[in-house]
Amino acid sequence: MIPQPTPANTTCEFCNSPGGAVLWQDDLCRVVRVDEPDYPGFCRVILKRHAREMSDLDDTEREGLMRVVFALENAVRSAMHPHKMNLASLGNMTPHVHWHVIPRFEDDRHYPGPIWAVPKRDANVPEPRRAAAAKIVANLLETLGAK
Amino acid sequence: MIPQPTPANTTCEFCNSPGGAVLWQDDLCRVVRVDEPDYPGFCRVILKRHAREMSDLDDTEREGLMRVVFALENAVRSAMHPHKMNLASLGNMTPHVHWHVIPRFEDDRHYPGPIWAVPKRDANVPEPRRAAAAKIVANLLETLGAK
Repeated sequence: MIPQPTPANTTCEFCNSPGGAVLWQDDLCRVVRVDEPDYPGFCRVILKRHAREMSDLDDTEREGLMRVVFALENAVRSAMHPHKMNLASLGNMTPHVHWHVIPRFEDDRHYPGPIWAVPKRDANVPEPRRAAAAKIVANLLETLGAK
Repeated sequence: MIPQPTPANTTCEFCNSPGGAVLWQDDLCRVVRVDEPDYPGFCRVILKRHAREMSDLDDTEREGLMRVVFALENAVRSAMHPHKMNLASLGNMTPHVHWHVIPRFEDDRHYPGPIWAVPKRDANVPEPRRAAAAKIVANLLETLGAK
């Protein structure tokens, strides 16, 4: 089934702004870099049309979106070799389907807690980690192709 | 490709215990009820074999696991009509692939924060919400069938 266009929600942040620097996109979704200095490599996959829950998508959309989420996980891992990957679709603040894809390191600000928990330590991001994050976009293009 | 058996990790919690009351299972994964009184309906989908990241799975495993995650999201929504669903695969504490599937309500302990953030209020779960959570297993069996 071909997803039908959905009118943008006029009050929705992700209907009205890209939500970060766009690294890749197709008709279904975009991958953006999250502006979070403590977490280089933190990206989001944002569905283009307005939908609230993953279970509101049809199978084609859901499979297409998850293909991008997992390709992004792979691209981040190849670029940064994190200790662990974290994936989450929450949307309590912005109820428009999006996925957080976050590389985690044992010395990061919240490890082993989720990044939304109380910090365990001050942020102290090694410079090579920021440099490595810059490789994500090339890895992603290699897997998903240019659009 | 048929996934090959992987030896259990002797120190891994999810290789050595079910991780909650089992609501449904097949050869690939199990759905368990999480013992968290503030969050009735909170379930996990736990991969049976030991693997660290979603991108360590082959396509068949990954698609099979996500099919169960989204069927569970649907089963929870139908049973409980939450304000929002939260999905997350973190694994910082237990690096064995598993998904948190969490129904969220505007009056729950952390809303609109993630459940791992600092609480916003005392827990005060209405009794009908606990009763509704008991319907999840029947909804799940209806979608996925008995195994």
